[in-house]
Amino acid sequence: MKNEKPVILVTNDDGITAPGIRSLMHVMKELGHVVVVAPDSPQSGMGHAVTIAKPLRLDKVEVYKGFEMYQSSGTPVDCVKLAVNKVLHRKPDLCVSGINHGANSSINVIYSGTMSAAVEGAIEGIPSIGFSLCDYSQNADFSPCEPYVRSIVKAVLKNGLPKGSLLNVNFPKAPDFKGLKVCRQAVAKYEEEFDERIDPHGRKYYWMTGKFALYDKGEDTDEWALDNGYVSVVPVQFDMTAYNSIPFLNNIDFNVQTK
Amino acid sequence: MKNEKPVILVTNDDGITAPGIRSLMHVMKELGHVVVVAPDSPQSGMGHAVTIAKPLRLDKVEVYKGFEMYQSSGTPVDCVKLAVNKVLHRKPDLCVSGINHGANSSINVIYSGTMSAAVEGAIEGIPSIGFSLCDYSQNADFSPCEPYVRSIVKAVLKNGLPKGSLLNVNFPKAPDFKGLKVCRQAVAKYEEEFDERIDPHGRKYYWMTGKFALYDKGEDTDEWALDNGYVSVVPVQFDMTAYNSIPFLNNIDFNVQTK
Repeated sequence: MKNEKPVILVTNDDGITAPGIRSLMHVMKELGHVVVVAPDSPQSGMGHAVTIAKPLRLDKVEVYKGFEMYQSSGTPVDCVKLAVNKVLHRKPDLCVSGINHGANSSINVIYSGTMSAAVEGAIEGIPSIGFSLCDYSQNADFSPCEPYVRSIVKAVLKNGLPKGSLLNVNFPKAPDFKGLKVCRQAVAKYEEEFDERIDPHGRKYYWMTGKFALYDKGEDTDEWALDNGYVSVVPVQFDMTAYNSIPFLNNIDFNVQTK
Repeated sequence: MKNEKPVILVTNDDGITAPGIRSLMHVMKELGHVVVVAPDSPQSGMGHAVTIAKPLRLDKVEVYKGFEMYQSSGTPVDCVKLAVNKVLHRKPDLCVSGINHGANSSINVIYSGTMSAAVEGAIEGIPSIGFSLCDYSQNADFSPCEPYVRSIVKAVLKNGLPKGSLLNVNFPKAPDFKGLKVCRQAVAKYEEEFDERIDPHGRKYYWMTGKFALYDKGEDTDEWALDNGYVSVVPVQFDMTAYNSIPFLNNIDFNVQTK
């Protein structure tokens, strides 16, 4: 194993033809044996959804010459599960997801298919990283991210990651990054708005939109880092236990009356 | 406000006609003014998915007499967002989700639409609880859960919950519960299997199945509590930062070469 190239699984949530995954694939090719398993269509906002009530497709495709690529009808999390069980028949040495077209900092981590794919990799015990560029423009340029992607992946291949954790890496929109900052997830949420419309049959429907609302003035957060020109690196865990709340709950008398 | 009945939002992921939500609605009716906003079809395994690439439907329905009920084409998380913004036009005093038909203990918390609806409630700052019964049989009996649901909801209405946390409550399959235990999320994962089939057109497809694999011998976990006949109560948070991993990352030399 020592002298073999690491096997790197590449996935995303924007779909297999998105420019961000192409950028990630090309950097990963310098560092290991790349296998791509990605959704056949955009899956933004899919969170940690899995497909259990309908069948999954998985097809070998050749979107780019010289790459081993598979597309699936499933979610980003499905893609990781299919990659391990039906494509690689082993765990890859690394799982990278992205580069997402849009921010996955702060609360976005929980809605993001890109990040959920990386979380799934970590649940499988695979060192995993999600990459996202905070630029929503159609012509977003992913190339300034590449030196950082390369360095972070090299460091993770060399050092591993603490058990039960993965990385959430976000790049600021402005390409002259000032460096890299290890951060915590900022406290934020979306203030939803629903654009109400009437369909041609006279029935109401809604488009969900939302404004990002930051409730955190900390200078140790991913939002601060990004606003100040740094690449943010947040270690993420999937143990969702609120340990600090356990004493509070143990002090409550639930007083169950089962008669 | 003090003398008014609390407004209680009820949702789930098994869909508005599922027996578990009916059970929850009836208990909640004793404790407050109930508004139901739930998916119009089963949404198990939807995790924290939101619907951004297609329109949402939201329709008033009367599945059960005497209840204010709305069904949506969206995910459980969409239902919470729609409830706050388009039905209640305020935050409810409590958000309850379930009772789920099947376990949402340990790693299930991350895949579960039921739990993600409660997480979304907590992101909105609403005291939120997800309830699940670890019984997959068609005729699962939700009635033994009801005294516990009543007591837990009363306690949360009285005491609130620590900021940024919600509750994940699971009921063992056997109905003679021994009591309630505050726990942490057990370390576990699914060992996937993909049932490979050929469709009538000769193309391969897969059904995802999986075996639950517990990697945790702790007696302070939800799995231990459930296996020993207790109702498990895990406080859950949506700050996914792996704080323990920050020092490890700060010691890594990422050595970024930007040209």
